[in-house]
Amino acid sequence: MTASRVLVGDLAVPCREIHLTNGESIRLYDTAGPAILPEGGLPPGRAQWIARRTGDRTPTQLWYARQGVVTEEMRFAAIREGCEAEKVRSEIARGRAILPANRCHPELEPMVIGKAFLCKVNANIGNSRVKASIADEVEKLTWSLRWGADTVMDLSTGPDLAETREAILRHSPVPIGTVPIYEALERVNGRVEKLNIDLYLDVLREQAEQGVDYFTVHAGVRLAHIPLTTRRVCGIVSRGGSILAKWCLVHHRENFLYEHFDRICEVLAAYDVSFSLGDGLRPGAIADANDEAQLAELRTLGELVVRARERNVQTMVEGPGHVPLHLVAENQRLADLWCDEAPFYTLGPLVTDIAPGYDHMASAIGAAVIGSQGCAMLCYVTPKEHLGLPEKEDVKQGMIAYKIAAHTADLAKGQPGARDRDDALSRARFEFRWADQFALAIDPDTARSYHDATLPAEGAKSAHFCSMCGPRFCSMQLTHELREVAEKGMADKAKEFVETGAEIYGK
Amino acid sequence: MTASRVLVGDLAVPCREIHLTNGESIRLYDTAGPAILPEGGLPPGRAQWIARRTGDRTPTQLWYARQGVVTEEMRFAAIREGCEAEKVRSEIARGRAILPANRCHPELEPMVIGKAFLCKVNANIGNSRVKASIADEVEKLTWSLRWGADTVMDLSTGPDLAETREAILRHSPVPIGTVPIYEALERVNGRVEKLNIDLYLDVLREQAEQGVDYFTVHAGVRLAHIPLTTRRVCGIVSRGGSILAKWCLVHHRENFLYEHFDRICEVLAAYDVSFSLGDGLRPGAIADANDEAQLAELRTLGELVVRARERNVQTMVEGPGHVPLHLVAENQRLADLWCDEAPFYTLGPLVTDIAPGYDHMASAIGAAVIGSQGCAMLCYVTPKEHLGLPEKEDVKQGMIAYKIAAHTADLAKGQPGARDRDDALSRARFEFRWADQFALAIDPDTARSYHDATLPAEGAKSAHFCSMCGPRFCSMQLTHELREVAEKGMADKAKEFVETGAEIYGK
Repeated sequence: MTASRVLVGDLAVPCREIHLTNGESIRLYDTAGPAILPEGGLPPGRAQWIARRTGDRTPTQLWYARQGVVTEEMRFAAIREGCEAEKVRSEIARGRAILPANRCHPELEPMVIGKAFLCKVNANIGNSRVKASIADEVEKLTWSLRWGADTVMDLSTGPDLAETREAILRHSPVPIGTVPIYEALERVNGRVEKLNIDLYLDVLREQAEQGVDYFTVHAGVRLAHIPLTTRRVCGIVSRGGSILAKWCLVHHRENFLYEHFDRICEVLAAYDVSFSLGDGLRPGAIADANDEAQLAELRTLGELVVRARERNVQTMVEGPGHVPLHLVAENQRLADLWCDEAPFYTLGPLVTDIAPGYDHMASAIGAAVIGSQGCAMLCYVTPKEHLGLPEKEDVKQGMIAYKIAAHTADLAKGQPGARDRDDALSRARFEFRWADQFALAIDPDTARSYHDATLPAEGAKSAHFCSMCGPRFCSMQLTHELREVAEKGMADKAKEFVETGAEIYGK
Repeated sequence: MTASRVLVGDLAVPCREIHLTNGESIRLYDTAGPAILPEGGLPPGRAQWIARRTGDRTPTQLWYARQGVVTEEMRFAAIREGCEAEKVRSEIARGRAILPANRCHPELEPMVIGKAFLCKVNANIGNSRVKASIADEVEKLTWSLRWGADTVMDLSTGPDLAETREAILRHSPVPIGTVPIYEALERVNGRVEKLNIDLYLDVLREQAEQGVDYFTVHAGVRLAHIPLTTRRVCGIVSRGGSILAKWCLVHHRENFLYEHFDRICEVLAAYDVSFSLGDGLRPGAIADANDEAQLAELRTLGELVVRARERNVQTMVEGPGHVPLHLVAENQRLADLWCDEAPFYTLGPLVTDIAPGYDHMASAIGAAVIGSQGCAMLCYVTPKEHLGLPEKEDVKQGMIAYKIAAHTADLAKGQPGARDRDDALSRARFEFRWADQFALAIDPDTARSYHDATLPAEGAKSAHFCSMCGPRFCSMQLTHELREVAEKGMADKAKEFVETGAEIYGK
């Protein structure tokens, strides 16, 4: 599935246009990307824009935004958001939004992440030592884009890391994120104590050169925070967090990512890779939510946001994790307060621990709520979370749960235009336009097949009832009859009735 | 699957006891009911309690509670809730809780619905003209109980209404609710205008005599409210609501359920059937949420709550529907305010219209949020909502989504003991006790099968990693190593480090 394009000046911006049977149409945001080239990979749509910027020493979107420059990327993202390009520029300049766009990722179709914009969804893919295939990962990428992933993280920890990442990047119209400490650890054969900043910077440079758009960096896991985790029910559940924590304790030294943060910034600034400041101490159990360890790290991340911005590096901040519903909003509030409204990017949060097999649902609840509070991007959780590696169907189920959560957040935030699709679908529902209901649904095939399961006949697609109530009890059909009655003069009577106090027959 | 029993004095109260591999055990609330008798149906556990009350003219739990009497039903429900029986009595007396228990439903295992107690879930079953079988409905009942339904509504609109209901009641350990206007309409062959109060009261008496525990009565759909719905995107979406609205308009008279509300109360009081005051004007689209029509009806329901309570009839109030997330809490607030904290019982709410096929997920978000605000019972929504009749698998998916939502609400409300299961599961997770994780999960079979999908070997059930990270990257395993390091003396150093200001290596 490839997207349609809208031509706006020199920009061909992707969208999905749905033509309804009543002659109306509606345009939806689309992430599926253009068709793959015959020689493989996607067309390098950004190549010319990037080429024109070769003289600039710090070619980050943040740097341009601060100069007052509206880049092509900003214009492109603004068209997708349905807003002015100036809004995108000013939000980036303010640090409330990022536009992850490595200058070595020309295939990218630019998008913007920030609380003033549509709530985004990230899908995780990646192999492990237990299961690995490059083709599988590219397939998972394309599949997650088909279901609306706004960014994709390659969390591979298995073999062929560089080759897998290269294949993903050349096929990705969306920003790709990684956790470079994984590759660093592979290079020292899993011996955490051997990790050091020079090795790490080498990994960053190589991945940046491939085109990775954002790096998760666990620089907030400070030595002093580690004792705060020892009485937790689930300790440290972030892989990156646990690696850095072990390194800190073994050497009894401060986290080298924190110590050498400025050198890390230099690499990211040179390529315009964005930071995703990792929450290595995020809670992995309801019992551990919003605890001292988590909040101490968040304060450190706030400090790092300032340092990164000073170096013109775009920065977002990662958040939890497992959080009971009454503590979810507090996470967004503290992130805004301590991290100066840098885009917040949360994993879920999962609002209970008892739902393995259904953690996409349990976490979509927390995700919708924190999204409605301004969380800029939601990292999806699949049904396999805590249990195994997601397969294709898991990716789809996770994406759908999260597109629902993100859209719920957009409706709650009052994002301009967000309700158009709901209204179009509800009007189709009220008018018994079944085909339009399916077309507007988040998963048209499933909606249609569920309808067919009870009423398979093609005639039922125009029936003025569904199998839930049958013809006699269809409330919508009754409402239509009611309107007819009302139009025959009852409306005036009813109106008069209200005006006279609604008491004529009342008591 | 039948429940274990705890003997407390003369009461054998159902529970599900989970024995963990570390020697601990945990008791969970259980609704599966006792084994079916050889002659069919469930044992009439309440028969003796009821028999002793034959002299009382208004034998409702509300009447007893107001006299200061703690009934066996209240004691039974209190044990399930893990609270004092006096708390159950006082909440019922205050009208903040109901204990639906028709004196003709001796098979009932009593439970209590109210904001001070665990959040409950209702499952809807019932045939339609399109699809009908008595055995199927009893099977759906048992199946929904197996997944934790706290009450079940029989919404049948097809043939054999009385026989289907009888079979359901004789097999139900949970309260059964109905919408009697459906049967009334069947008796006049679907001709809405022929409905009248005498026919309706006949239906009520017959259903009450069978043992129905609560009736949805759409007495709040007043003639004056109907014009308020005409500009809605989705009009009236409640079947009962649309039937009454049509009746009102055709006769241009006030709703006969409203006019004769006191006569209806008499029937309910005589059997101790509880009211579920229907929200016939609930919004069926995001665009229609919290509108004048909905709120006008809610105010009327508040008036009816007072009238019902005066007549010792236990009463809960139904709520929406389709509501965007930012308006969800307002529904609970207004229901509390206008309906004097009568238990609120909502359908979802669905927080977006665009998810047909996934409305169980979309509505579980709204359900969790309103539950956390004190909504007493959540009416489940299945994946087939808006599309077709739920099959067995849909009932399961709907139930699981709603058990997650209700448990999320209990955690957020700080319901005593609610977090025990989360903590037990998270401890099992941290200690790699895979079998215990499965046993504690909301759906053990699915959790186990997802784990097996990547690591099928039995040995993997004790492996100190899972397939998500593999052995090298397992954060939990790293945390265990970290604890070992810490125990070898690093802990003291780290502590000292914090005490000296955490700056030794910091800058």
